[in-house]
Amino acid sequence: EKPGVNTIFSERELQTAAWIRDAARQDNLSYKILESLTTEVGPRMAGTPGDARAVAWAESKFKELGFDKVWKEPVTFPSWKRGVEKAEIVSPFPQPLAITALGNSIATPDNGLVADLIEFASLKDLVAAPPEKIKGKIVFINHKMQNSNEYGLVVPGRSSGASEAARKGAVAIIIRSVGTDSHRFPHTGVMRYEAGVPPIPAAAMSNVDADMVARMIKRGKPVSLKLELSSSANGSYTSYNVIGEITGSELPNEYVLIGGHLDSWDLGTGAIDDGAGCAIAMSAAEFIQRNRIKPKRTIRVVLFANEEQGLFGGKAYLEAHRQQISRIQAAAEADLGQGPVTKMSSFVRAEALPLVKQMQMVLAPLGIEAGDNNAFPGPDMGDLRLAGAASFGLALKADDYFDLHHTPDDTFDKIEPARINQAAATYAVFAWMAAQAPLHFGSGPELEKLNKK
Amino acid sequence: EKPGVNTIFSERELQTAAWIRDAARQDNLSYKILESLTTEVGPRMAGTPGDARAVAWAESKFKELGFDKVWKEPVTFPSWKRGVEKAEIVSPFPQPLAITALGNSIATPDNGLVADLIEFASLKDLVAAPPEKIKGKIVFINHKMQNSNEYGLVVPGRSSGASEAARKGAVAIIIRSVGTDSHRFPHTGVMRYEAGVPPIPAAAMSNVDADMVARMIKRGKPVSLKLELSSSANGSYTSYNVIGEITGSELPNEYVLIGGHLDSWDLGTGAIDDGAGCAIAMSAAEFIQRNRIKPKRTIRVVLFANEEQGLFGGKAYLEAHRQQISRIQAAAEADLGQGPVTKMSSFVRAEALPLVKQMQMVLAPLGIEAGDNNAFPGPDMGDLRLAGAASFGLALKADDYFDLHHTPDDTFDKIEPARINQAAATYAVFAWMAAQAPLHFGSGPELEKLNKK
Ligand SMILES: [Zn+2]
Ligand SMILES: [Zn+2]
Ligand SMILES: [Zn+2]
Ligand SMILES: [Zn+2]
Repeated sequence: EKPGVNTIFSERELQTAAWIRDAARQDNLSYKILESLTTEVGPRMAGTPGDARAVAWAESKFKELGFDKVWKEPVTFPSWKRGVEKAEIVSPFPQPLAITALGNSIATPDNGLVADLIEFASLKDLVAAPPEKIKGKIVFINHKMQNSNEYGLVVPGRSSGASEAARKGAVAIIIRSVGTDSHRFPHTGVMRYEAGVPPIPAAAMSNVDADMVARMIKRGKPVSLKLELSSSANGSYTSYNVIGEITGSELPNEYVLIGGHLDSWDLGTGAIDDGAGCAIAMSAAEFIQRNRIKPKRTIRVVLFANEEQGLFGGKAYLEAHRQQISRIQAAAEADLGQGPVTKMSSFVRAEALPLVKQMQMVLAPLGIEAGDNNAFPGPDMGDLRLAGAASFGLALKADDYFDLHHTPDDTFDKIEPARINQAAATYAVFAWMAAQAPLHFGSGPELEKLNKK
Repeated sequence: EKPGVNTIFSERELQTAAWIRDAARQDNLSYKILESLTTEVGPRMAGTPGDARAVAWAESKFKELGFDKVWKEPVTFPSWKRGVEKAEIVSPFPQPLAITALGNSIATPDNGLVADLIEFASLKDLVAAPPEKIKGKIVFINHKMQNSNEYGLVVPGRSSGASEAARKGAVAIIIRSVGTDSHRFPHTGVMRYEAGVPPIPAAAMSNVDADMVARMIKRGKPVSLKLELSSSANGSYTSYNVIGEITGSELPNEYVLIGGHLDSWDLGTGAIDDGAGCAIAMSAAEFIQRNRIKPKRTIRVVLFANEEQGLFGGKAYLEAHRQQISRIQAAAEADLGQGPVTKMSSFVRAEALPLVKQMQMVLAPLGIEAGDNNAFPGPDMGDLRLAGAASFGLALKADDYFDLHHTPDDTFDKIEPARINQAAATYAVFAWMAAQAPLHFGSGPELEKLNKK
């Protein structure tokens, strides 16, 4: 190593990083961890017995994998339970529909409710419509998500459609699933009631059913739907962020933060959302531990509690560690499926950019592009960035992610070893290089200010 | 036409047939008929209100399409009703499973039954196993259907697995779905109880769940499953074969018989099984009617009742028309999805083979191969062939058929106009040429005898 030149990795470090890249890709641990989680725990919706089983699984898996430290930090949130969920077209063409309650939805009356549908092409159209057309009806938002880039465009209909509809007198809302598949699976996901607006039941139907209901509506007669939900709020629940560390050799109190969220929705087994992210982060750190190539700084893996219903784990982590933001060398969460990683972007102080460039060069042979210096580190780490944490965005290829996302079909058989192993290798390289870097990446007031520009 | 030469079509006839082939392929009627059936009727399991709605739909659709004669013939059968269907792994890894009752299954006790699973790779392995290993257990046949050619190989586990398991003291059976997909849909289908063997509940889990349960079993501890079914026999029901005819111009009492089965399973809307077959046959005949090119013989379209639960419509048709087998010029049912047709085989007397050859030449530009002279005309017409009816097999491409077959995902959005239109055009050409042929294809004692060889 060349003393005095702090903004480049040494030749030897670059060789080690390249070795990690190539060897970790041949390693199948991420695949095996995910097989274990989906088979032995399966669905783990926040606040359910599956949540508690997942926490126990994670603690014991970290220990089995030889992490230096393993602990839990409490995360408390209001829990919600799913119940009966049924819908059918009552007239003019009686047929059952494949639907699911949206997370946080209240129940319908005991025997369900029946009303005519009114269709809107988007949330925007609902917002623009006159209340007199909506009063007493069930709002049907039929906004088709065309590809994985449209999640942000379409998802507001899921999160805030109910209150927009209720404000105009609707008795319930049922949306086209926010998803890109054409299978008869409804996609669940969280929704929110706006304060001061009466809550109404909220559900999603599969894309297949949305197409069918639209064909019925096109025939010109009123289409009447019966909806029955018994979902409800279920009191306060305390789950845990589960954390495992590989202790750094020189700067153990500074750490690279990687992870995923441990909770899933209840319909599938959470293989791609977000078992994959957990497995990628755990295996990346374990690979470094097993191969006795500890970097200077600590690598900390956080499996966040309850991301799905409101980023509760991420918020709790920030609250518990807010005083030590500057000890975070770099943060990156994996929460967009099984990989591969296609791009690496950063959010670091200018002095560290040459190091980022070297990291990108090591990763380039995996098909990973260099991104900008405005990275989003993932849902549970977004607030850390706002608080000043140096952040990385390791973009996962998501072209099929929203086919499976939040459906019963999010299961382990969809995982391809080559994809998840590439992502695990990428996280291993990233975590090792960031932890070994000859320079602090800048977490603290300087980066916090940069956020506010 | 050349008098005296009865075994070839005239040039003019061949031109008309080629015109039908090319024009019918541009016609989108089969697609529209199927859209109507799946949207306006949807699921139509034999013996349910959907069955009655389908019969009413079919009668009115035949009339709307301008068929010369439309009528119904009664078909009586024991009906079955689906009820609650739930399964979960109770230990060591509690998880719900995606399952469905097999048609004809009895119920479990009211609160379900719980027992350990015993896995077999196939029905054959179950048959070979010692009873002491099976007594008191739930048999799990995990026979993976690799491709669409393996339906006949794998389906006996569904139809007769329950009685084989019960004979050895099993308390229930749950099979891997007979299907080629990797989505979380269980595939239903009919099963039979053997007389003298106690009936036990019978269900299927999705391929995804079968993979997962197998992974659990591999871990070496007993895997215990809870099964709850409330399905039951539901008394006798009378449905109808619905029939429409385009009357022949010279030999109206001889007819070409085409069709599909009108019933479906209840989980999907029966788009590929067998709404497609119904739509293909109806549109083929209608195309000829609309274009005023009536052939010499009648074209009769039969939409059979209750194929799924035991070929009841086909058997009733044979009973009602057994005395007139020799009036059938040719018979071919479509019941393997949306097409395209890939091969045409025949079962006719030797003198008619040159005509078949000409038919095959007209169809060749659609990518249709010539088959042998041992055709199977389809499930509801198989017994007609045994009784001596000249038969044709218009093989439908089935590579994706068993992905969707008998699942909730058998829905209209899976239909590609180009595929179903090719099949409809093929049926139009076949029906027209067979009805116009200068020679009787040989239905009667001669062909009946050929079956017995
Ligand atoms: Zn997620
Ligand atoms: Zn999610
Ligand atoms: Zn069929
Ligand atoms: Zn079938």
